[in-house]
Amino acid sequence: MSFNSFGHVFRFATWGESHGPAIGAIVDGCPPGLALSEADLQPWLDKRRPGTSRFTTQRQEPDQVRILSGTFEGKTTGTPISLFIENVDQRSKDYSEVAKAYRPGHADMTYDAKYGFRDYRGGGRSSARETASRVAAGGVARLVIPEVKIRAYVVEIGGDPIDRTNFDDAAIDANPFFCPDPKAAERWEALIDAARKDGSSLGAIIECSATGVPPGWGAPLYAKLDAELAGAMMSINAVKGVEIGDGFAAARLRGEQNADEVRADADGKPLFESNHAGGVAGGISTGQPVVVRVAFKPTSSILIPVQTIDREGHDTEISTKGRHDPCVGIRGAPVVEAMMALVLADQKLLHRAQCG
Amino acid sequence: MSFNSFGHVFRFATWGESHGPAIGAIVDGCPPGLALSEADLQPWLDKRRPGTSRFTTQRQEPDQVRILSGTFEGKTTGTPISLFIENVDQRSKDYSEVAKAYRPGHADMTYDAKYGFRDYRGGGRSSARETASRVAAGGVARLVIPEVKIRAYVVEIGGDPIDRTNFDDAAIDANPFFCPDPKAAERWEALIDAARKDGSSLGAIIECSATGVPPGWGAPLYAKLDAELAGAMMSINAVKGVEIGDGFAAARLRGEQNADEVRADADGKPLFESNHAGGVAGGISTGQPVVVRVAFKPTSSILIPVQTIDREGHDTEISTKGRHDPCVGIRGAPVVEAMMALVLADQKLLHRAQCG
Amino acid sequence: MSFNSFGHVFRFATWGESHGPAIGAIVDGCPPGLALSEADLQPWLDKRRPGTSRFTTQRQEPDQVRILSGTFEGKTTGTPISLFIENVDQRSKDYSEVAKAYRPGHADMTYDAKYGFRDYRGGGRSSARETASRVAAGGVARLVIPEVKIRAYVVEIGGDPIDRTNFDDAAIDANPFFCPDPKAAERWEALIDAARKDGSSLGAIIECSATGVPPGWGAPLYAKLDAELAGAMMSINAVKGVEIGDGFAAARLRGEQNADEVRADADGKPLFESNHAGGVAGGISTGQPVVVRVAFKPTSSILIPVQTIDREGHDTEISTKGRHDPCVGIRGAPVVEAMMALVLADQKLLHRAQCG
Amino acid sequence: MSFNSFGHVFRFATWGESHGPAIGAIVDGCPPGLALSEADLQPWLDKRRPGTSRFTTQRQEPDQVRILSGTFEGKTTGTPISLFIENVDQRSKDYSEVAKAYRPGHADMTYDAKYGFRDYRGGGRSSARETASRVAAGGVARLVIPEVKIRAYVVEIGGDPIDRTNFDDAAIDANPFFCPDPKAAERWEALIDAARKDGSSLGAIIECSATGVPPGWGAPLYAKLDAELAGAMMSINAVKGVEIGDGFAAARLRGEQNADEVRADADGKPLFESNHAGGVAGGISTGQPVVVRVAFKPTSSILIPVQTIDREGHDTEISTKGRHDPCVGIRGAPVVEAMMALVLADQKLLHRAQCG
Repeated sequence: MSFNSFGHVFRFATWGESHGPAIGAIVDGCPPGLALSEADLQPWLDKRRPGTSRFTTQRQEPDQVRILSGTFEGKTTGTPISLFIENVDQRSKDYSEVAKAYRPGHADMTYDAKYGFRDYRGGGRSSARETASRVAAGGVARLVIPEVKIRAYVVEIGGDPIDRTNFDDAAIDANPFFCPDPKAAERWEALIDAARKDGSSLGAIIECSATGVPPGWGAPLYAKLDAELAGAMMSINAVKGVEIGDGFAAARLRGEQNADEVRADADGKPLFESNHAGGVAGGISTGQPVVVRVAFKPTSSILIPVQTIDREGHDTEISTKGRHDPCVGIRGAPVVEAMMALVLADQKLLHRAQCG
Repeated sequence: MSFNSFGHVFRFATWGESHGPAIGAIVDGCPPGLALSEADLQPWLDKRRPGTSRFTTQRQEPDQVRILSGTFEGKTTGTPISLFIENVDQRSKDYSEVAKAYRPGHADMTYDAKYGFRDYRGGGRSSARETASRVAAGGVARLVIPEVKIRAYVVEIGGDPIDRTNFDDAAIDANPFFCPDPKAAERWEALIDAARKDGSSLGAIIECSATGVPPGWGAPLYAKLDAELAGAMMSINAVKGVEIGDGFAAARLRGEQNADEVRADADGKPLFESNHAGGVAGGISTGQPVVVRVAFKPTSSILIPVQTIDREGHDTEISTKGRHDPCVGIRGAPVVEAMMALVLADQKLLHRAQCG
Repeated sequence: MSFNSFGHVFRFATWGESHGPAIGAIVDGCPPGLALSEADLQPWLDKRRPGTSRFTTQRQEPDQVRILSGTFEGKTTGTPISLFIENVDQRSKDYSEVAKAYRPGHADMTYDAKYGFRDYRGGGRSSARETASRVAAGGVARLVIPEVKIRAYVVEIGGDPIDRTNFDDAAIDANPFFCPDPKAAERWEALIDAARKDGSSLGAIIECSATGVPPGWGAPLYAKLDAELAGAMMSINAVKGVEIGDGFAAARLRGEQNADEVRADADGKPLFESNHAGGVAGGISTGQPVVVRVAFKPTSSILIPVQTIDREGHDTEISTKGRHDPCVGIRGAPVVEAMMALVLADQKLLHRAQCG
Repeated sequence: MSFNSFGHVFRFATWGESHGPAIGAIVDGCPPGLALSEADLQPWLDKRRPGTSRFTTQRQEPDQVRILSGTFEGKTTGTPISLFIENVDQRSKDYSEVAKAYRPGHADMTYDAKYGFRDYRGGGRSSARETASRVAAGGVARLVIPEVKIRAYVVEIGGDPIDRTNFDDAAIDANPFFCPDPKAAERWEALIDAARKDGSSLGAIIECSATGVPPGWGAPLYAKLDAELAGAMMSINAVKGVEIGDGFAAARLRGEQNADEVRADADGKPLFESNHAGGVAGGISTGQPVVVRVAFKPTSSILIPVQTIDREGHDTEISTKGRHDPCVGIRGAPVVEAMMALVLADQKLLHRAQCG
């Protein structure tokens, strides 16, 4: 099934392929009366936009978003918001090779297995291009949760992590990697250049922190805040792992190390002494920053030839030419932010539904 | 919101608290005509059952499941299947301390923040006891996917991983840890004994592999097979991380290393030379084993006192006496299997819906 | 598909068959902190309970509801509420005839067509007995909407309508027909006695009015308040028609007749001069009473033999002996009330989610 | 909540307002490999298109549908299908009166009550213009159920019913009323002309029959085929009543009259002697034609002044000038057909999911 919608009460659905005329999203269930124009969404799209540095694909897409419905006199009306982004630079190209042979790591073979055939132009529906729709929808979600500040940044590329003692929030937007450690950003430049020169690609780990989430969003089981986040993040192309707070490292701690001890402040409010839990306990937000980390595999489209088979079941090899991100995880940062915003907006409304 | 249901067309919902009279699940959308009796479900519950070794809680629960609806003459009818498990050993106990002070890592504080009050007896709805309902429902799901073999095992406890070269499928059920490496099992015995003696607890990492999943289950985006699995696994109590295939390690590979190269077999069918992808490409199963790894934090209930606050906002400390698993991850293995079965059964039916 | 759940954020699911050990419902998404005990639900079940007059089936069911989860110290906790009703009087009986031959109007033939076989004892899942679960769940829903008063009553039996000028709210509970017109109640007594004596059955029309619904619940399209009500009512066994406000009669009015004209009261609030719309305009409540009418067909189980075929495709005839309601619509009144409550509770929470 | 999506596995969502730049729909879950181009959808839109006779609004809309995603080389790919219809004739007009005063029967007052404000231009989201999106989506649904023939026709306008003995399928498309009785069509011409001349409007009743639905689609409870149809039809603007088969008339029949008796044909297959049930028994299709009747109220926009209040709570009166259908029910016929197709396509896939 192709369930291209997400969320419970604040919901969105996306549509569109890499090489069709346009892509877009419908946002449904948005509270009425929020000031919304294209100018509120465009900055987020600009962050994700390709072609802005030599470290991303050279496809040139202005990614100008248009709002086709759901607003009136500059405010949301509570009815569905249709977001529309034209595809501009679908460079004409010879796809005959991709049409025949299956690119490892891509959805080529699995699409054929599921649907019997596929739109092989630029990855079709599976193209990372789809994430522009998410970023646009995420821009609407942010308006629903003005109390929350969301920040995603790359903490590791190609196995080279940042040094947390260098963490500088201001640096994140000052380099092409959304890297909070300026020194790591320098190293990554060389790393990625080398990978690209080799016709290879690199993976990345993105961390996203949402501060200002009040205690009480989420649910004890099933629609746990962390479960929703895990599903949301894993729904992004190329993601292979998700962790909340200490995540896998928590499995290596002892109980007393992992306990986020608490002291009362002057008003009797909790002051947490650590945040191993990543802001979620029992599926419900604690009031601490909600912290999630997301693993992006290296871009599957590489120049280095790899062995594969074709549609007819014959051995062949394939080398993916064309314009590709040498590290698709980099542009994942704005997408991870968008998914965080979309989950939190939904959870805020769900909490309000049940608990007033 | 308390969305205690899961799945799209093969769905289940659970109910019940640790210290209520019973717990249970409703399974909806099950295909008709499947042979089903309590005897099909009980073995899975017995695997998860507490009190079977000194490495799990000493609460004694027979966990006898009853089928109250949805079958006739030993077969599923296609109508809702009500599964019912009595709570037997709700030992009477003094909960006054837990009622007042918030246990770090537990849902105590977040429940109060969300709902204004909570059932503090034994964790209430958040008790790992709820997972018995999942295991029962998972037993029904297994009948829907007889072509699939699901196997979960513990690959790491307290930071001590198994040696993959010792992997012995037969060993998994021959020790109290669902450990496929007999040598690791020996070490873990000592590790856990020591932790328990210290009044501490340990985390664990569970791996689950599903073989026999045909290519084509899942969806390109949103309801991706891996996204569904991530949400499902993260919905289990105490889980803090999920990865598919190589997961976080994939982010440290180069594109050509991460590529699962393919050769054609004699019939032109794909023979994969590796499974970095964990059996999922572009959200759709590849036909290789579906592999997921799940991180369980150390049990939050520990004897070692930790600093916290009480409901009135005063500093205090808490030490959790009573019966607890020193490593809640161990009994997570049958639960992870159940969630895998529940997701795959749903995906099988969804695939059949769309693609016939 | 067997989607035995209903609602968006205030949700319920039911399970159970006529001749199984029990039936029940799970209510999910209920706001926390509402006072709830069995005593809050039992009166509604008692209204629907069979065997209380000679005009309903003689099956004796105490319909004692038990709350198995979701409350603590007499209040809802916000977690799933499991409602449990034992089946007591499943009189042992010879079902061999029903097992073989298809009763017209029943689900016998369609179950076999869909599922390949069926639980033929007492209608199985399709028994009106299932509605006890709805009534129990509806009792919880009422607690969510204390501002609303819901009243269902029978306005027509066997083609004999009430005289609206005789409408007496106090009469509704003073006769076995939920009839607001005492004179009609007298006539119906004779009508039903005659039908029963003939081995026949009668249909009924139930009207349900919900007063106190504030303006603003519902949605412009798709999840319109009236669309939700229509789906909810038509989901009850034996229902064949639903109308809102003037319903089908509205199709015979001219625009100016159908217009609910409005005057302002002293505070500028709307005073409607009529309620042709039945309290819903554009899918959203107007503040006037929400009025729905529901048509119940005559009970399909009748003593008069009717022509049919058997499972093997041979002509036969069937005469349904056993205990049956001569007019199943009568006991439909409490069920219609329950469905109204369940829809309104959900809509209240949905409105709060989106609009605060 | 604004749940602008519909369906379980074959799903659609619509967006757009009467006076925005465009309207549209996303169809999700469509089976792959179906031949689909704009030419498959346009004929249905042309049927619903305004401005084709003097009996419908004079707004001129070409309603040219574009397919923006979800197809490749002329076939559905299984991914979301984006359908796009430009608004062309949003005649500039003075809406100041509608902006201030509430039109009875319209969503004006309820929108303000729910959302705090509204898009008052041409009814905004509540405009019947939205139904063009449904008709387009319904065109896709038809491709999923080629075995089914769906036919809607008007059986009554302004209280004047057709004579069933004159029923002529060929007549339906030969008059501007989708009327199967040529004599009634003649009378309606005069009726509607008179109403329009008076500045009034008329209601209508539409019947829709789906032949070729195999036995077995639907579910015993909740997602009953008839419940889904009732919700779907009542979700259409201006609809106030829905009935299946004999509907309200069934409530006036005795059990033996309402029984659809059955004889076996030469192959042992059922031959029904009547279809009081409208093709649905116990929520599941019987194999007979699925018959639904839908009541449309008279168009609320009329020239005859009616009393109302304005936003400030003062008495006023309003007379709706501009272009309006004198009988909105007429153009409802293609919309009812579309909703029937959308429900049946979903039910077909759901049945396949559960029962193979």
